Amino acid sequence: MSSAYAGEPATPYLRVDVGRLRSNIEATAARAAAAGVSLRPHAKTHKTPEIARLQIAAGAVGLTVATIGEAEVFVDGGVEDLFIAYPLWLSDEAVRQLRDLAGRADLAIGVDSVAAATRAGSLLAGTGIAALVEVDSGQHRTGVPAGDAGAVAAAAVEAGLPVRGVFTFPGHGYSPDLMRTAADDEAAALSAAVASFREAGLEPDIVSGGSTPTLGHSHTGELTELRPGVYVFGDAQQWELGVMQPEAIALTCRATVVSHAGGRLVLDSGGKALGADRAAYATGSGRLLEHPDARIVLLSEHHAVVDLADGALPPLGSRVDVVPNHVCAAVNLADTLWADDATTLAPWAVAARGRNA
Amino acid sequence: MSSAYAGEPATPYLRVDVGRLRSNIEATAARAAAAGVSLRPHAKTHKTPEIARLQIAAGAVGLTVATIGEAEVFVDGGVEDLFIAYPLWLSDEAVRQLRDLAGRADLAIGVDSVAAATRAGSLLAGTGIAALVEVDSGQHRTGVPAGDAGAVAAAAVEAGLPVRGVFTFPGHGYSPDLMRTAADDEAAALSAAVASFREAGLEPDIVSGGSTPTLGHSHTGELTELRPGVYVFGDAQQWELGVMQPEAIALTCRATVVSHAGGRLVLDSGGKALGADRAAYATGSGRLLEHPDARIVLLSEHHAVVDLADGALPPLGSRVDVVPNHVCAAVNLADTLWADDATTLAPWAVAARGRNA
Repeated sequence: MSSAYAGEPATPYLRVDVGRLRSNIEATAARAAAAGVSLRPHAKTHKTPEIARLQIAAGAVGLTVATIGEAEVFVDGGVEDLFIAYPLWLSDEAVRQLRDLAGRADLAIGVDSVAAATRAGSLLAGTGIAALVEVDSGQHRTGVPAGDAGAVAAAAVEAGLPVRGVFTFPGHGYSPDLMRTAADDEAAALSAAVASFREAGLEPDIVSGGSTPTLGHSHTGELTELRPGVYVFGDAQQWELGVMQPEAIALTCRATVVSHAGGRLVLDSGGKALGADRAAYATGSGRLLEHPDARIVLLSEHHAVVDLADGALPPLGSRVDVVPNHVCAAVNLADTLWADDATTLAPWAVAARGRNA
Repeated sequence: MSSAYAGEPATPYLRVDVGRLRSNIEATAARAAAAGVSLRPHAKTHKTPEIARLQIAAGAVGLTVATIGEAEVFVDGGVEDLFIAYPLWLSDEAVRQLRDLAGRADLAIGVDSVAAATRAGSLLAGTGIAALVEVDSGQHRTGVPAGDAGAVAAAAVEAGLPVRGVFTFPGHGYSPDLMRTAADDEAAALSAAVASFREAGLEPDIVSGGSTPTLGHSHTGELTELRPGVYVFGDAQQWELGVMQPEAIALTCRATVVSHAGGRLVLDSGGKALGADRAAYATGSGRLLEHPDARIVLLSEHHAVVDLADGALPPLGSRVDVVPNHVCAAVNLADTLWADDATTLAPWAVAARGRNA
């Protein structure tokens, strides 16, 4: 709890603890280096060129993004190596954008079907753009079965699209009981995918996986590259999964106490600031950094009603730091992150906010 | 399902059916007029000056907003009468902004405690800004018990802040079994609040309530004004509550089929386009306008995995119209609404997007 200080932005706003951010970036870079794998962080979490540059400076080989629009922002921001980890279906405009990007950066895209691989080859052959084949390691979202990876890769190569390797996202590891299992599933799927490539006469250079919850388990087997995103900030999901402790959480939503209605704490950090994500294992709609027992028990667009548990209500008008459940969603709602380096509060533009296409 | 046409924006994008939008605006205006109450729509749903002007043209007495930033956008857009239906805690900067707005529009704010009322009076007396007292009618979010309304109003008046009346939000009506109950609770709370005002020697001019789910039940008792928001567009929540039929839904997220992984439909309309809201009564994370039995069964940031129920998968690259669960959240993720009047597709700026303060 704190009071507003002169020049502080109006609440709710997102505040980044730059010391913690740097520490998270360095710790994960060191972990990847120690495991002998490359780090290609997913920039969908921060969407912010300043943070991308810190990641590259700490040794990341490039960035992962989800959309062409994000890739454009980070190439504009000076990043030279990008993987769009998404099964793009290529419209005419998408092809035009990708060709333009290929002249400015090393670029790869995801494919997860023979049809998409063939189409991408026909539209992108000769541009220098490469593909990675996505396999499903247990999340059951996108990706082919690992045993089909070689066939998709062969179709891409046949169509003129170079294939660098294979990737997966062990997203089912977002569960307290499944982090280890998901990492094992990932290792098994990637191993099977590599075998499938070899059966097709192809050798993958890149075998890519990883997520923040599985980061402690993902360094084995065929893996050559990790793509975690959330680790830069942490959030209430990582806190509740036990992956990151509150002392490491580097992004909070600073909120003002606007009401004590019903004897509860009501903050101005609603779902339009925090995002409305609430995983099955979540104990609430967000947490307070300095009140570990508190939970947001009712979240609407501009109100967060908090059960404080320890009883002493911070006064009306005071400010508290809220930890969003899912930081990627919160960042995508903000135009600016306020970077606090303990001496100044600097605005960082969330330059790729809203770049969904 | 449809194919992309020349000049269509990249997916995912939000498309407004202007004919349906106009019809929804006119039907609710007519309903309010028939009931003899004023309509002051909540603009947090659309955040778009073009839509505000349609509402005013159809007879709305002014707009409701949630934040000072939204008020600034709509005053800039020509709206002359605004109610900030929120228990603002007034920072120095907020006072400066409100004083500026008061010179350009008729302005009222919410208060829900004696402390906030006294503070607002001390800071805003003489500006022409008025207050409405918020009462809790059963949602248990903000607002005082109805019997305390008169005391809060008296404190405001004593501090120099004119009080226009009382307001509530029957938000617990967002439940299939509670719409009627919430409307009844609202009527009872407003009636008790009016009595409390009179005991304090005050007479409320405005007795304000309403929400889209309770719209069919809210025209009774002391009510003089309705503040629904979602009715302009509708969404999957209103569809599932039975409040609006799919034929009335005026906003969809147009999405592209990017994968058939696992034999399911995967769209590029993830939670960063649709929002992640999922009420307890929701049957999924979003629906498809032309496939009423389909449900989004897995929503991540850039993927919506759909269980289509009827089996025939739309082809890769084709486009479908997704109905977000909660349209206010979806709109707040977009910089532009694409307004389709059957002959042209025009960009409307979501000018108040992200204006959380």
